[in-house]
Amino acid sequence: MALRFDNRQPDELREVKFTRNYIEHAEGSVLVEFGKTRVVCTATVGEGVPGWLRGTGKGWITAEYAMLPRATGQRTRRDGRQGYVNARALEIARLIGRSLRAVVKLDKIGERTITIDCDVLTADGGTRTAAITGAYVALHEALSWLGGGKETGALPLSDSVAAISVGIVHGSELLDLCYREDVAADVDANIVMTGNGRLIEVQATAEGEPYDRAALDRLLDLATGGIKTLVELQKKALES
Amino acid sequence: MALRFDNRQPDELREVKFTRNYIEHAEGSVLVEFGKTRVVCTATVGEGVPGWLRGTGKGWITAEYAMLPRATGQRTRRDGRQGYVNARALEIARLIGRSLRAVVKLDKIGERTITIDCDVLTADGGTRTAAITGAYVALHEALSWLGGGKETGALPLSDSVAAISVGIVHGSELLDLCYREDVAADVDANIVMTGNGRLIEVQATAEGEPYDRAALDRLLDLATGGIKTLVELQKKALES
Amino acid sequence: MALRFDNRQPDELREVKFTRNYIEHAEGSVLVEFGKTRVVCTATVGEGVPGWLRGTGKGWITAEYAMLPRATGQRTRRDGRQGYVNARALEIARLIGRSLRAVVKLDKIGERTITIDCDVLTADGGTRTAAITGAYVALHEALSWLGGGKETGALPLSDSVAAISVGIVHGSELLDLCYREDVAADVDANIVMTGNGRLIEVQATAEGEPYDRAALDRLLDLATGGIKTLVELQKKALES
Amino acid sequence: MALRFDNRQPDELREVKFTRNYIEHAEGSVLVEFGKTRVVCTATVGEGVPGWLRGTGKGWITAEYAMLPRATGQRTRRDGRQGYVNARALEIARLIGRSLRAVVKLDKIGERTITIDCDVLTADGGTRTAAITGAYVALHEALSWLGGGKETGALPLSDSVAAISVGIVHGSELLDLCYREDVAADVDANIVMTGNGRLIEVQATAEGEPYDRAALDRLLDLATGGIKTLVELQKKALES
Amino acid sequence: MALRFDNRQPDELREVKFTRNYIEHAEGSVLVEFGKTRVVCTATVGEGVPGWLRGTGKGWITAEYAMLPRATGQRTRRDGRQGYVNARALEIARLIGRSLRAVVKLDKIGERTITIDCDVLTADGGTRTAAITGAYVALHEALSWLGGGKETGALPLSDSVAAISVGIVHGSELLDLCYREDVAADVDANIVMTGNGRLIEVQATAEGEPYDRAALDRLLDLATGGIKTLVELQKKALES
Amino acid sequence: MALRFDNRQPDELREVKFTRNYIEHAEGSVLVEFGKTRVVCTATVGEGVPGWLRGTGKGWITAEYAMLPRATGQRTRRDGRQGYVNARALEIARLIGRSLRAVVKLDKIGERTITIDCDVLTADGGTRTAAITGAYVALHEALSWLGGGKETGALPLSDSVAAISVGIVHGSELLDLCYREDVAADVDANIVMTGNGRLIEVQATAEGEPYDRAALDRLLDLATGGIKTLVELQKKALES
Repeated sequence: MALRFDNRQPDELREVKFTRNYIEHAEGSVLVEFGKTRVVCTATVGEGVPGWLRGTGKGWITAEYAMLPRATGQRTRRDGRQGYVNARALEIARLIGRSLRAVVKLDKIGERTITIDCDVLTADGGTRTAAITGAYVALHEALSWLGGGKETGALPLSDSVAAISVGIVHGSELLDLCYREDVAADVDANIVMTGNGRLIEVQATAEGEPYDRAALDRLLDLATGGIKTLVELQKKALES
Repeated sequence: MALRFDNRQPDELREVKFTRNYIEHAEGSVLVEFGKTRVVCTATVGEGVPGWLRGTGKGWITAEYAMLPRATGQRTRRDGRQGYVNARALEIARLIGRSLRAVVKLDKIGERTITIDCDVLTADGGTRTAAITGAYVALHEALSWLGGGKETGALPLSDSVAAISVGIVHGSELLDLCYREDVAADVDANIVMTGNGRLIEVQATAEGEPYDRAALDRLLDLATGGIKTLVELQKKALES
Repeated sequence: MALRFDNRQPDELREVKFTRNYIEHAEGSVLVEFGKTRVVCTATVGEGVPGWLRGTGKGWITAEYAMLPRATGQRTRRDGRQGYVNARALEIARLIGRSLRAVVKLDKIGERTITIDCDVLTADGGTRTAAITGAYVALHEALSWLGGGKETGALPLSDSVAAISVGIVHGSELLDLCYREDVAADVDANIVMTGNGRLIEVQATAEGEPYDRAALDRLLDLATGGIKTLVELQKKALES
Repeated sequence: MALRFDNRQPDELREVKFTRNYIEHAEGSVLVEFGKTRVVCTATVGEGVPGWLRGTGKGWITAEYAMLPRATGQRTRRDGRQGYVNARALEIARLIGRSLRAVVKLDKIGERTITIDCDVLTADGGTRTAAITGAYVALHEALSWLGGGKETGALPLSDSVAAISVGIVHGSELLDLCYREDVAADVDANIVMTGNGRLIEVQATAEGEPYDRAALDRLLDLATGGIKTLVELQKKALES
Repeated sequence: MALRFDNRQPDELREVKFTRNYIEHAEGSVLVEFGKTRVVCTATVGEGVPGWLRGTGKGWITAEYAMLPRATGQRTRRDGRQGYVNARALEIARLIGRSLRAVVKLDKIGERTITIDCDVLTADGGTRTAAITGAYVALHEALSWLGGGKETGALPLSDSVAAISVGIVHGSELLDLCYREDVAADVDANIVMTGNGRLIEVQATAEGEPYDRAALDRLLDLATGGIKTLVELQKKALES
Repeated sequence: MALRFDNRQPDELREVKFTRNYIEHAEGSVLVEFGKTRVVCTATVGEGVPGWLRGTGKGWITAEYAMLPRATGQRTRRDGRQGYVNARALEIARLIGRSLRAVVKLDKIGERTITIDCDVLTADGGTRTAAITGAYVALHEALSWLGGGKETGALPLSDSVAAISVGIVHGSELLDLCYREDVAADVDANIVMTGNGRLIEVQATAEGEPYDRAALDRLLDLATGGIKTLVELQKKALES
C-alpha cells in the first residue's frame, strides 16, 4: 500500500506530545500535539452550576473550542466580531463537554462547574480529537487540584477518555488523518473511547460516497488501536 | 420484554406521515410527523452559491433548523433575541445539510443553492431524524420543480436519504425514541442511510454508561430496519 | 363593482378557521386561518413578571411574532442570524401584546406572565389581524387552564378581542385584504375591537394617496362588520 | 373644565419652536421643541437606494430614532450594548419614514436615499409627533440643498406633513399630551396629516378602557386643529 | 507664524462655553462647546456598584460616549445596528471614566455608580477633551445633588479635571486642534490635568512622523496653559 | 532601594525571548515572551484595503488582540459569546495597528492589508507592549515574504518599533511592570518608540495619585533605556 504524505503506515499515529502546566494560571492545563496540530487545553474550576442542576449537589463539565485566526492556512475571522457565530466550533465544544462528562462522577465534585477551554494554535487535521485527548489531561490535573493532590485512584473519575480520527482516503482506511488527508477523505470518522475500550461517541460521516457496515467495522478497529496508544501516553504524561 | 410508553414493540416506528405541499409558497415543502413530533420542511431554490464554489459550475445544499417556542414542554427562547445562539440547532442544521448533499449530484444543479428549512412545530424526540427524512421529500419536490417536473429517474439524485434514532433505554435497544425514552437513554444514536442501505452518518453517544461494539452493532441493525420502512413511505408519498 | 381576485364581495371575509389545541405542549394554542394566511398561536403561562410590576400583585401579557422563512413568496432570513433585527416583527408583537392586555384583568391573574407566540406558517396578507384573533383564543384556553377549567364567565377577561384589516384598493374599500390586495392598497388599516364593539386600536396608513375623514369612516364601518363575524366564530370555537 | 398641569386649554399646543441649521454638517437639520420635548432632526442625502429600488430611477426616505440616555427621568440603556434592541424606537422610526415618504415625489429625487435621524434630547411626551413635524423641516432643507436652493414650489414635494398626539385623560380629550398626561391617558392617539388636511396615519390605542367611534371622532377633530397650527409654524420656519 | 484656519494664535483656545442644566431630567448635565464642537454631558446617580466593588463601601464612575449620526461631515452609523461596535467610542468612554475617577473620592459616595454620558451633537475636533471638561461640570452638579446641595468644599472631590488636545501641524505646535488641523497633524496629543496642574493622562500619538522628547515637552507646556484657562472657565460656570 | 518581587532592579527588563515561525501557516509569526507574559503574534498578508484607501495604491496595517480565557488568574469570557464586547481589547488592537503603521511605508506595499493578530497565552503584565514588540518581528517576516526574501535594507520600513511599560509603584519608578506591580501602580505608562529613539506613542495614566512633569520625564528616561535593549533583541532575532 502506498505510504502517506508523511510516510506513516495506515494505522500509525502522528507523534503525540503532552506539555503539562502549559498555562500556569489554570487549575489544569496542557499543550497537546498530534503532529503539527497543537491545542492548548485548560480546565477552570468554578463554583456554581447551571440553573437546572442547582440544589442537586451535582457538578457540571462544559467546554469551549476556538482556533487562533492563523491556526489555518487562510486566516479565519474571530468569533464575535460583527455578529458572526462559528457553528463548527460550537458543535465541537459540545462534543468535548459530552465526552468528558461521560467519565467524571459529577455527583462527587459538588456544585461546581469545570470549564474546559481548547484553543487551537495550529490546525493540521484532528483538532477535535487532540482537544478531547488533551482536555482529559487538563481535567485530571484540575480534579487533582480540587482534591488537594490526591492520588488518581481517589479522583472522581470512572475511567479515562481519548479520541482519534479515522477515515477512508482514496480507498485506504487511515488512522489519525492530517489536513491533506482529511479534505480528500470519502469517509471521516471521530471516535471517542474510554481507557478500558468502551465507546463514548462514534461519529462517522460520508463526505463523498456512502459507506457500508463492513467499512465502519474496519474503521472502528483502526480507531481502537490508536486510542489504546493514546491512553498509554496520557497515563505516562500524568505520571510525570 | 416490557412494552414501551406507547405500547410499541422495541423495533416499531411511531406512525409516520408526510403532508406534501404544506407551505404553498415554497419550491418544495412537507409536514413530516413521527408520532407527535411534527416538522415543517421547505426547500427554497436560489440562484448563486457560497464564495468557494463560484465559477465551479456546482450547486450547494444548506439547511437551517429551529423549533417554535412551544414545540417543547417548557417554552424555549427564540434565536436571536439578546444575542443568544442555539448551538444545538446549528449542529442539527449542519447534519441535515450534510445528509442531503450526500445524495444530490451537486454538479448537475448549476450554481444554485437549495436552502432547506426545518421548523419543529412539536417536539417529542427524533426531531433531527424526522427533519432529515422530511427534508428529502421537500428537496425532491424542489428538484422536480427545478427540472420542470421531470420524472424521478431524471432528477440529479444518486439515491434517497432517511434517518432514524435508536437507543438503549433501561437495557433495552429501542427504535425511534420518543422524548420520554430519549431523556432516559444511556445510549442515543442517530443513523442516516441511503435508500439502498448504505451509511451516510452514524452518531452514537453514550449519555450515561459507555457502550461496547456489540451494542453498537445491534443498534445499527435496528436502525437499518426502521430506515427501510421510512424509505418505502417516502416513495409512496412522492408518488402520490 | 368588480369582484376581487378570489371572487369575494368587498365586505366579505376569507374563510376563517380555528384549530384548537394545535400545539399540545402549550397551556393554550390554536392554528388560525384567514384564507391562506395561517398562524400558530400559543399561550405560555409563566411565574413572575417584569421588574416594574414586581410586588404589585398584577400579571402581564407579552407577545412575540415571527414568520417561518417560507411563509412568504421570497424566503426571508431568520431573526438573529448575523445580528439582523426584524423591526416589522417587533412592531407587530407589541401590537398583539397591547391588544390582549386591553381585555385581561391583569390584577386577577397574580404575578404571572402569559407569553403569546404567533408564528406564521403561510402569509397571504392580514397576518397581524389573524394573529390577534387567534391569540385571543389561545389566551382564553390558557386562562381556563390557569383557572382549573372554570367557565368563561369566571375568567379574568373584561371582553373578547378580534382584529381585521381593511383598505382602499384601486378606489374600492375592501375588508380582509389578501396579499395581492395589500400591496396594491392606497390605504391600509388594521382595526382591533372588543367583542362588544368598542375600539382598542385603530391604525390607518396611507401607503400612496393620503385619505380623508369620510374614507376613514367607511373603513371603520367595514371593519366593524367583519369583526362582528370574527367574534361569533371565536365564540363557537371556544364552545366546541 | 379643570386646567392641565401646565395650565393649557384642552385644545392648546405647547410652545413649538424650530431652530434651523442646528447641526451644521447635515444637508438639512432642525431642533424642534414641543414644550420640554426637544428633538434634533437631520436629513442626510446619500447616493444609492435599497436593493429592491435599484434600476427604477426612484429614491427612498428612511428614518432612525433614538433617545439620549437621559432624555428620560430614568436613564435608558443605549441601543446596541449587549445585544439589546429597542423595539419602540424601531417602530417610531418606521412611522417617521412612512409619514415623510407620503409627501415626497420619490420618482423626482433620483436613486438617492435621504436618511432622517431623530435624536431626542429631552422627552416630555409627544417625541414621535415632534420628530415627524421637525423631520419635515429638515427634509425640506435637504431637498432644497439637493435642488441647488430652488424655491419651494419647485421641490419634489406633493404637500407638507405634521403630526400631533391627542388623548383621553381622566375623561377629558386633550391635545398634545405631555408625559404626565400620557401615562395617565386611557386613550393615546398619534395623528399624521398633510398640510392640506388629509390623513397619512391614524394610530389610536386604548391603554385602559376601549373607546367608541364618537370619541375617535372628537380626537380627530382636536388633532386637525393642532396640526393646522403646526403647518403654519413649519411654513414660517421655512420662510425665515 | 502663519495664523490658523480660524485666525487663532497657536496657543489660543477656541471659544469655550458651558450651558448648565441642559438636560433637565439628569442629576447633572451641561452642554459644553469648544468652538463648533458641542457635547451634551449628563451625570446619572444610580444605586449599586459593579460586582467587584460590592461590599467595599466604595462607589464607581463609568462613562459612555457616542456621536449623533450627523455630528460628522459624513453620516456615521449608529452603534448597535447590525452588530457593529465602535471601538473608538469605547476607547474614549474608558478615558473619560478614568479621568473622572482620578479626582473623586470614591470611598465617600457610598456604593453608588455615577454614569457619565457624553453625546456629541457636532464634532469639529477635540470631542474627547471637550467631553472630559464638560463631564467634570456635570459630575460636580450630580455630587452636589447627592450631597443635598452642599458647598463645593464639602464635595467628595480631591481636585477638578479638564482636558485639551495639542498637536504638531505642518511643523507648528498648536493648542486645541479643530478637525481640519487634526487630520493634518503629524502628532496628536490629548492631555488630562487636574485643576492644580498635575497630570492624569498623557496620550501623544505620532500619526505621521515620530517625534522627539523636546517636541513632547513643548506640547505639554502648551497644554498646561490651555488647561489653566479651562479650569477657570469651569469654576465660573459652576459658580453661576 | 528594595528589590522587586522577582529581584529585578528598577530599570531591569524581564527575560525577553522571541521564537520565530511559531505558527507555520502565517506569513509572519513569533511567540514573544516578556517573563511570564507570552503572546503569539502573526502577520497575515491579504489582497485589498479598506474602502477609503481603494484606488490610492497604498496598503494598510490592522491588528486584533485577544487573550486566551485562562491567560489570566480568573477565567475571562471569550469575545462574542452573548453579545459581549471587550473594550480594552479593542483599544489595545488600535494601539498595535497605529504603532506599526508608523514605521511601514504604506505606499510601498501595494493595495494590501497586513493583519496582525496578537493572542495572549499567559498574561503577567505588559501584554500590549510585548504584543507590539513581537508584532514588529512578525510584520518584518511578512514583509520579507512579500518581498520574496529581500534583505532588510530593501524592506518598506522606515524604522523598527518596540514598546515597554513603566510605572510608579509605591514611590519607585519601575521598568517593565509585572502584573503584581501593575495593579499596585499609581502611574502606569506605555511607551512606543522607534529603533532610532523617537516617540510613536506615549500613554501615561494616573491610576491613583496624579503625577507631575518631572515624574513623567523620569519614566520616559527609564522607558528609553528599556526600548534600546528590546531593539537589540529584535535585531538579533531577525538575523537568526
